[in-house]
Amino acid sequence: MTDATDGREPLEPAAPVDDAFHVFDTTLRDGAQREGINLTVADKLTIARHLDDFGVGFIEGGWPGANPRDTEFFQRARAEIAFRHARLVAFGATRKAGVRAEDDRQVAALLESGAPVITLVAKSHDRHVELALRTTLEENLAMVRETVAYLRSHGRRVFVDCEHFFDGYRANPGYATQVVRTAHEAGADVVVLCDTNGGMLPAQIDAVVRTVLGDTGARLGIHAQDDTGCAVANTLAAVDAGATHVQCTANGYGERVGNANLFPVVAALEIKYDRRVLPPGRLAETTRISHAIAEVVNLTPSTHQPYVGVSAFAHKAGLHASAIKVDPDLYQHIDPERVGNTMRMLVSDMAGRASIELKGKELGVDLGGDRELVGRVVARVKERELAGYTYEAADASFELLLREEIEGRARRYYRVESWRAIAEDRPDGTHANEATVKLWAKGERIVATAEGNGPVDALDRALRVALERIYPQLAGIRLTDYKVRILEGNLGTGSTTRVLVSTSDESGEWSTVGVAENVIAASWQALDDAYAYGLRRAGVDPQE
Amino acid sequence: MTDATDGREPLEPAAPVDDAFHVFDTTLRDGAQREGINLTVADKLTIARHLDDFGVGFIEGGWPGANPRDTEFFQRARAEIAFRHARLVAFGATRKAGVRAEDDRQVAALLESGAPVITLVAKSHDRHVELALRTTLEENLAMVRETVAYLRSHGRRVFVDCEHFFDGYRANPGYATQVVRTAHEAGADVVVLCDTNGGMLPAQIDAVVRTVLGDTGARLGIHAQDDTGCAVANTLAAVDAGATHVQCTANGYGERVGNANLFPVVAALEIKYDRRVLPPGRLAETTRISHAIAEVVNLTPSTHQPYVGVSAFAHKAGLHASAIKVDPDLYQHIDPERVGNTMRMLVSDMAGRASIELKGKELGVDLGGDRELVGRVVARVKERELAGYTYEAADASFELLLREEIEGRARRYYRVESWRAIAEDRPDGTHANEATVKLWAKGERIVATAEGNGPVDALDRALRVALERIYPQLAGIRLTDYKVRILEGNLGTGSTTRVLVSTSDESGEWSTVGVAENVIAASWQALDDAYAYGLRRAGVDPQE
Repeated sequence: MTDATDGREPLEPAAPVDDAFHVFDTTLRDGAQREGINLTVADKLTIARHLDDFGVGFIEGGWPGANPRDTEFFQRARAEIAFRHARLVAFGATRKAGVRAEDDRQVAALLESGAPVITLVAKSHDRHVELALRTTLEENLAMVRETVAYLRSHGRRVFVDCEHFFDGYRANPGYATQVVRTAHEAGADVVVLCDTNGGMLPAQIDAVVRTVLGDTGARLGIHAQDDTGCAVANTLAAVDAGATHVQCTANGYGERVGNANLFPVVAALEIKYDRRVLPPGRLAETTRISHAIAEVVNLTPSTHQPYVGVSAFAHKAGLHASAIKVDPDLYQHIDPERVGNTMRMLVSDMAGRASIELKGKELGVDLGGDRELVGRVVARVKERELAGYTYEAADASFELLLREEIEGRARRYYRVESWRAIAEDRPDGTHANEATVKLWAKGERIVATAEGNGPVDALDRALRVALERIYPQLAGIRLTDYKVRILEGNLGTGSTTRVLVSTSDESGEWSTVGVAENVIAASWQALDDAYAYGLRRAGVDPQE
Repeated sequence: MTDATDGREPLEPAAPVDDAFHVFDTTLRDGAQREGINLTVADKLTIARHLDDFGVGFIEGGWPGANPRDTEFFQRARAEIAFRHARLVAFGATRKAGVRAEDDRQVAALLESGAPVITLVAKSHDRHVELALRTTLEENLAMVRETVAYLRSHGRRVFVDCEHFFDGYRANPGYATQVVRTAHEAGADVVVLCDTNGGMLPAQIDAVVRTVLGDTGARLGIHAQDDTGCAVANTLAAVDAGATHVQCTANGYGERVGNANLFPVVAALEIKYDRRVLPPGRLAETTRISHAIAEVVNLTPSTHQPYVGVSAFAHKAGLHASAIKVDPDLYQHIDPERVGNTMRMLVSDMAGRASIELKGKELGVDLGGDRELVGRVVARVKERELAGYTYEAADASFELLLREEIEGRARRYYRVESWRAIAEDRPDGTHANEATVKLWAKGERIVATAEGNGPVDALDRALRVALERIYPQLAGIRLTDYKVRILEGNLGTGSTTRVLVSTSDESGEWSTVGVAENVIAASWQALDDAYAYGLRRAGVDPQE
């Protein structure tokens, strides 16, 4: 050993908020094991920036030397990212059996990555040492001891992941503990107890972490997988028992069911434990960063994820709505703004008067005193929901219904006489979709026909052709999303069909709903509402 | 009070596996609060059958009297379902303040539901009593005492849900405990401590349940919401502390983030606690029932749900692969077959071939040696999946594709010249849906027209009219389900549409897929495959 740094200096270390208790993110290494995730180097760099922005203490970037993508990531991260809070961590295995640490190519790759911190994965379950590593229990201890010492001698901070620790501890507590002690005595800063197969429950984690802490005096960390649905709780149980290093992944991404989810773990530590693990002001970025990372990995953000899902603070029950009017804190465990989320009221058949009033307020309509009016709206919503309508996802249709009841009549921009849509598969193999609309607007009868990609598209175009001269504002309104749901299965094609349409203009987006015995008629209703709402938004006077 | 049953006898009680420790499902009541779920009475009946089939002890069906749908559900459940394991439970509130229990209409509706068990929701948080109920703490206790006693005097078993118990206990432990004691002394069989806002962590639940159990001697239950991501762990913490009634919902459906998920809770109790809560053999139905309920509520089953997700036992290649070959138990916390799931290896490249060979075997086609053939099938599947097809849920379409490659050509029963579907909204307000099909079969050109509930239904009928004389076997084949999914959002009605159709004859059911730019053309493809497969099954010779 000549030069400890050997031209491969660690990066300038950034500063975790509190190194004595820190959050270690492994989205880029263990999270990437999730089925359906396939990260490019550019993706990994973007995610690393988001994680640093969020303020985690450590970012495990991958396994340099094990695959070229991870090697490149470390090169580029060094060159391209000025970390503000996080330290970059390289992951790798202890030296191979029978090879000196300084001769092990994978160990060398860890140094070459330039990462100031290295996580070494070590076996701590006796059966795995024998069956997977195919070496002796003694040699495994030597592998841990010598690899840690070698990396320490090169100025690296070392964390050791004890793989399958909890299963191993059950099978052979003496040996599992010996691995922890060996890593600790060789200079590992943290020894991480991993529930690799994810089968543990919080009470088991608590008991084992407490005992191992007492037996070894090592600084302990926790790595939990979510196979029992308890990864967040298991992580917190380890903290209760004295662990001061918690490994998580953004949105709980990870192999099989996934890992402990970074966001609820951090929110629990900051809010429930009153422990500062993020820089000031960053907790309010939780929702944004969760969604941003989902975008990068190209997975739809879970609507029901704790703290950050769009439904996480959405209230549906009528029972709750009346109390929420009095005090939102009565029905929310935290103020959603603390994690950058917002409260939403959903209109549904469970909804009583209170939620309709609240919804009215959200839409800028004060229904305050008029009990009779609210009663009428409640009755109409219930009746329509029984028929298959849903207003949760169709704010604009609900507002039209509400205004119709307030104003005593629907504001109509045109009156439809009839429409017809034709879908055709021709002898020459081409498709044709054509629709005709006959309507009255401003006292004029208009007949228009258009072609489209499908019958609904053709109908939409024909309606626009018919109206564009009279309502030029329609040019600024466009369909942005379209969803079909068949409401009753087991009934073949005769079932009720619900269509949800999203429409936007320059300043916003709105959703409408249609329900009918078939998809074309349901689509027509949703389109009709969409344009009525759009024209009202645009301040157009109805002139039927 | 004259007659305790008053002509409204409880249902014949079914038998939970172990009443002294039971699972109480509230999918149909609290689960239905989830954003995006909107259950019809038929949906509720189907879900109740699945839950009874799974073997939970109690099924909370809804709030009779609060909305007409729930009232109808109890009527129909009484008449239509012979429960084998579960007892049906009606949910409702304690009597109103200042009203006698016997004069309270909602309380009467609970008796009228005919449910043998009733869950009463009661306030146990002093602030909620004052702000939401607007009554005194004393009157709230009287409401609990008198309503429980009244229902007991009518022969009902009563459970009491203490809403906001844990928040209430923190604010005023004396009062919260008094509510539990009051319910217990009035004859409630179980007093359920509810973490209504879902803000608790397991250690807190454990401590409070333990103390309340010691202080009151009441039989306690737990109802956990998942706002901290700890609902499963919170439920198990309460069990550790002595609770013997656990409330869950299928797939964790519920308000905001959701409720404690039935499946991981039951799996933990059965497998990790070695406690029998299901009838023999039912645990192996967990995956199937989880997915079936997701279908009914029309939500895609979560791929990463513990125990039951398709990814729950999926292993990515690498470190784990070689060890799994030695012994799968080394990398799985349980044998997936115990919960009816399967291990999957996600090995890139070759996985395609392996799974296609496996699939072939499943369908009774040995692809063993023919590498060239398998390669061709892999390529075609990849290409079609890229276009939006999915064969996971369309076995019959996959088998047709496979046989086409094996036999060198598709087996055709007819050749379509053209088709046309018309959907029309007429001036008199009536709808008309008509389709015409022109095709060749057995050398004959046939033109047929039919009407239907919608354009797809009309097309289906026209096809049957055209073919019924030549293939009378079609009379025994009928459509049983129809699903539409728009594959790309943000593209308006021009997106790709995928249709999945289920079809059945006397001896079984099969599924087919169609993908096209519009719903009619996609439906046509799926129908075409459905009938081709059905005729092949019926042993009919193709005579184009």
